[in-house]
Parts: sequence; structure tokens; C-alpha cells
Amino acid sequence: MSDKDTRSGVRIEPPERLLMGPGPSNPDPAVLRAMSQNMVGHLDPYFLEVMDRTMEMLRAVFRTTNHHTIPMSGTGTSGLEMIMLNLIEPGDDVVVAVIGYFGQRLAEMATRAGARVRVLEAPFGEIVEPERFAEELRNRPAKLVALVHAETSTGAEQPITEVAALARDHGALVAVDCVTSLGGMPVEVDAWGVDAAGSCSQKCLGAPPGLGPVTFGPRAIEAVGKRRSKPSTWYMDLGLLFKYWGETGADKQRAFHHTAPVSSIFAFHEALRLVLAEGLESRWQRHRDAHKALVDGLQKLGLTLFTPEHHRLPMLNVINIPDGVDDARVRGALLERGIEIAGGFGPLQGKTWRVGLMGMNADPAKIQRLIGALREVLA
Amino acid sequence: MSDKDTRSGVRIEPPERLLMGPGPSNPDPAVLRAMSQNMVGHLDPYFLEVMDRTMEMLRAVFRTTNHHTIPMSGTGTSGLEMIMLNLIEPGDDVVVAVIGYFGQRLAEMATRAGARVRVLEAPFGEIVEPERFAEELRNRPAKLVALVHAETSTGAEQPITEVAALARDHGALVAVDCVTSLGGMPVEVDAWGVDAAGSCSQKCLGAPPGLGPVTFGPRAIEAVGKRRSKPSTWYMDLGLLFKYWGETGADKQRAFHHTAPVSSIFAFHEALRLVLAEGLESRWQRHRDAHKALVDGLQKLGLTLFTPEHHRLPMLNVINIPDGVDDARVRGALLERGIEIAGGFGPLQGKTWRVGLMGMNADPAKIQRLIGALREVLA
Repeated sequence: MSDKDTRSGVRIEPPERLLMGPGPSNPDPAVLRAMSQNMVGHLDPYFLEVMDRTMEMLRAVFRTTNHHTIPMSGTGTSGLEMIMLNLIEPGDDVVVAVIGYFGQRLAEMATRAGARVRVLEAPFGEIVEPERFAEELRNRPAKLVALVHAETSTGAEQPITEVAALARDHGALVAVDCVTSLGGMPVEVDAWGVDAAGSCSQKCLGAPPGLGPVTFGPRAIEAVGKRRSKPSTWYMDLGLLFKYWGETGADKQRAFHHTAPVSSIFAFHEALRLVLAEGLESRWQRHRDAHKALVDGLQKLGLTLFTPEHHRLPMLNVINIPDGVDDARVRGALLERGIEIAGGFGPLQGKTWRVGLMGMNADPAKIQRLIGALREVLA
Repeated sequence: MSDKDTRSGVRIEPPERLLMGPGPSNPDPAVLRAMSQNMVGHLDPYFLEVMDRTMEMLRAVFRTTNHHTIPMSGTGTSGLEMIMLNLIEPGDDVVVAVIGYFGQRLAEMATRAGARVRVLEAPFGEIVEPERFAEELRNRPAKLVALVHAETSTGAEQPITEVAALARDHGALVAVDCVTSLGGMPVEVDAWGVDAAGSCSQKCLGAPPGLGPVTFGPRAIEAVGKRRSKPSTWYMDLGLLFKYWGETGADKQRAFHHTAPVSSIFAFHEALRLVLAEGLESRWQRHRDAHKALVDGLQKLGLTLFTPEHHRLPMLNVINIPDGVDDARVRGALLERGIEIAGGFGPLQGKTWRVGLMGMNADPAKIQRLIGALREVLA
């Protein structure tokens, strides 16, 4: 391509979409406005204040007092890999629960970090019972137990409390992927005894994609401190990152590590403000109410959910595609009506749809719109 | 912090800054507008078109036909580490030129990737002569030669052409950090025979920070294909990333890898459009002209540049702080006037300032404003 070919070029004019897939959800207009504010430097006194408040609000959202609580400068996936690459050294024993695609991904990351990985698997839709973790750790200890709280590929909630307690009893750290759950259902990092957790910006928190919120508790920090070797990554090295984000609460000296994504952090700051202004409990309730409204609406259309009711997520609904209905045609027809839903993942491809009710979109009027459109399209 | 403490919360209201540090520079208002457009999904047909056009425009900016040319979903640093972690396997021999902080960083990344690193060092302000690379490679071959084109900590340009040619002759790949140079001075990936290059979004390209543009040529792709082991990173794995970005030009099938930072890519797309609308040659000339205007202005104030003239960068100017002048006071007083410049790096801290003329800020009126403010503050 020569310069000339793009001299006029194409401008960004995205269509309006109601985003009812697995995220991104639609950000509040105030979040998009915050993102397009004046640029400032990544060491500007104003930006350092924004960083402090972002950490403070993120702690409130994670329900933790962990100092080491930041948005990683990459998407949610980067935050999870940051956890793995900092907590794991080559040769470490790691137990990973795999109840769907995102559990497989954690296991793959742990393997690449050099761990000897033992997988506790459950069929898609099911969860791993706590007793299986206990048995595995009794048979052989592990440095880390990693699991996905809200499995986006199957719509299943893997309960954390009991697993975290028994992992602790066996001297293992607990790392949790709460990419889909954070901001939309209870995530209690401190009360549950979770040592490290990672999420994303673009689902129930309602910011654009691009940041990977993470938190590390004292036991995790201790483990990182005891490493015999440096992590293979410089970009995601926890110690280096905290020379920029602040090694202690009192120490405001910031050392350059990388140029923070200033605008994305502006947007994230505003999204966190809105989450806490609503109140976490109210927000969780709103996501539960939205889920009920969706299930009611689906029932009237004769549609059923794939995931067993007792561990169904509120914000990510996996719907069985009725026999004889063409997956791609339905999703295409919905998109023509301005509504995005997602197809199934892996073995569930072509057999299920995934409908997200996240952030602003956990809303009765939007669910009515979706149900109305589905009624038309399926008729 | 309880939810209640932030129920009202603090809104994002950044001050206006003229950003004449090492980046971010001030983005064009059109870029910030693009970033705050409607959110769409990362697999939306509209977004897939944006991805294609982004790759196409980025190739034009890198002056390459490399298919593997994308913005990595992380800051410029992530793009450089992605290059290192994909090209290097444990035990590989790597030669790194270190003429300042960012060269040291490349060497550290290569070491963490498992390489046996040999460093060719030059004092801050100087460059490494091509003959030293030739000598090093004659003594012992290497898989990769890595070097920084525009060293942001010293203001020095390390010429690439000759080094790339002789590395090739010795069977080594060449990876270049062009974080500061891309869009502000000639970077000719194909003509120079560079195998991999990484830059950033927030300097001479004029987008917000948050993306790491990278390009990989055929020899680099071949080397990645011959790896005996997977990279330690899943997030930055080139092969996995290209299942999403498109394995070949014709194959439009995109597989989910991570949720792309949609808004940041909107902004980057608009920034690239503006770069190519101006024309790369015109843009390089504008940066050269700005540099001359700055040097003239500084001369009138009795200020001199640290970096020897024959390898001085246009967009990053390292200025000697006159004896008896307080570094922090001057930068503070400029910031009060709404102008950001940066302090010196490492051994140059307290001894130099760094003034960036990048993107929109390579502009005579803005340079006049800076010189005027400096005159006041130094008086």
C-alpha cells in the first residue's frame, strides 16, 4: 500500500450494537467520555492521583485490603498470565480445575510457566466438587491451586470458598480467574481467602476491553519474594510493576516501568466509580434480577438453558439451540437487528448460544428487546 | 474502603498539558473521538474490517509487506517482549547493543527469555559502530541481534542498515526497537532487512498509549516455526495471536484468542489514517524541521544538547542542564505553565532534560511556547 492509497482513508464509524455476548458489554457513555479526556503523562501528578484512586476503588470491588491491586496494562488474559508467571517457577506443582475452555487456558499458561500441572476435569456444564481438590492435595501437595470462578464457555459457577480453605490447609496458594464474575456477582477475595485473582475491564465492570485487574495477597507476595529465579517476563513482572504503581501505600515514589495506558485507566477509573456509586450488592442483585427476567423470557419462547440450575451464572447464560434451528442464521439475523449474542464454545459450538447480561446490559428493557428479536427470528 | 466512601466519587478531569516529554504526545482530537465511539464486539464483522485496515496501514507505516504486522494488546514494551519471547528459545545466543536504558531493557528481556546474551555497550550518548557487530558475530555466531534504533534515554540514533546487512550475512536475525522513531523519522523495515520490529502507539504515531505495534518478516516467522518448545507466554504467543488476527491474508476466519482492546484499536486506526494522510515523508520532514526550530530556540537561551550532532534524534532532544540550575524546580515551573518535559534517565538524571517533539507536537508554535516558558523559568 502506498501512502497515496490511504490519503483520505476510512474513518471509524462503528454501528450501534446491543452487546449481549460474553463481553465487551456496552460501556456507560460517561466511561467513554472519561476515556477521551485530555492526555496527560504517565508520571504527571494528576495521573499519579488517578492511579491511587484506581487502586483504592479496585480493592473495594475485589473486596480486599491487598495493597498489590492494579489494572495490568493488557487485557484480562494478560492479568491471568501475569499471576501464573509470577507465582509459578519451573518445576512447581500446580493443580488446575478445568470445567471449560478458560480452565484449559489456565492449565496451558501454568504449563508454559514451567509447572508440573495436574488437571481436575469436569464435563462441560459441570463443576469440580471440593472433595476432589482435597483428595488431590492429600495425595500430593501443590504450590498453587488455580480455578475459574465463572466459566464463560459453559455458564457454570465453580464455588471458591471451600476450595480456598482446603487449599490453604494443604499449604497451597489459590489463584482465581474471576474475569466474568467480578462486578456482577459476589467475589470476596479476602473473606474467601483467595491469594491472587484476575479479572477484566469489559464485562460486568463496564469499561472498554484493554485492562487486566489483578490482586495479590500477602501469601502470594511472600511466594513471589521467595522465587529463586526471575519470571520469564519483564513486562508482567510483579516486582517491577510495583516500582511504578507504588511499592507500599505510603511510598509515593514512582519509577518508570512502562508507559501506562492513560486513557484506558481514565475509562476504568470512571467505570469503577459507577460500580461503587451503584453499590456492589445492588449491582449483584441487578444481575440476578436480569438473569431471572431472561430465563422467564426464554421459557416463553420454549428455550431452555444448558447449565444445571444450581450452579448457573447470572451474567452468562448458555442456551440450548432447538433441533433444526440454524445457529449462524439466528445470530446473523439478530446482528442485523443490532444485537450481538455469541455462539457456543468448543464442543458446544452449534449446540448453544451464549447470552451475556453484563454491566449496563443487565437491564429489563434490553432483555425485552432481545427476547422480542429472538421471537421474530425464530418464528 | 466501603462502598459508601466512593458513592459520589471523583470524576476524571485532567488538566490541559502540552506533552513535550518522551511520550505520550498529545493525540489529535479526531483520535480521541475515534476512541470514544460505540463499542462493538471483538468478532463483530465491522471490527474485523477495522483490524484488516489497521494491519494494512501499519504495514505502510513500517514500510513493509510483512503479513504479520499487528498492534499487540499491551503497551510498546509488551510488543518488544513479544518479539523476544517468540524469537528466543532457552540457550539461544543473542547479541544486544546497549547505548542506553532501553538497550539494557532489551538485554534483560532476552536474558529472561533464556538467551545467552552478549552485550555490545557504548557510553550514554554514543552508538555502537557496525564493525563491532561484525567482529562479535565473526567470533561467535548468534541467532539474533537486537538493538534500539532511537534510544529515548540518550537521544541517540543507532543506524540500522549496515548492522542488519552484516547480521544477515552471519545468519542472525535482526530485531529493532523503533518505539521512538516510528512515524517521526525513516524506519524502513523491508529496505533495511529488519526481521522484527516493535514500536508504540503514543509517540510519533500520536495515539494514546496502550498498543505495541509489531511486525515479523519471513525469516522471523520461519524461526518461530522451527521452535522446539512453546514460548513461556500464552498471551504473547505469535502463533495464537495470528489465529485471531488472520493466519494468511486470504483467510478471514478468526479464532478467539483474547478480547481485543476495541476502543484503543479504533484510536490507533484513526492515528494511522492521519499519519498516512499527511504522508510519511512529510511527517519525517516536519519532525526534522521541529528539531531545528528547537535547537535554534535553545541556542538563544544558551542551552546546549547532550547528544553529539551526527547521531542526534529529531524527536527526542537531550538538553544539558546548566550549572547551578535546579532540575526539579524548572520542570515543576514548566508544569505549572501546562508544559511537560522529562528529566534525564539513569546516569543523566539531574544533568539533562529530555524534550520530545512527537506527532502533533512537532510544531513551530508549540516549540515557541516551550522556549518562551523556558526563558521565563530560567530567568
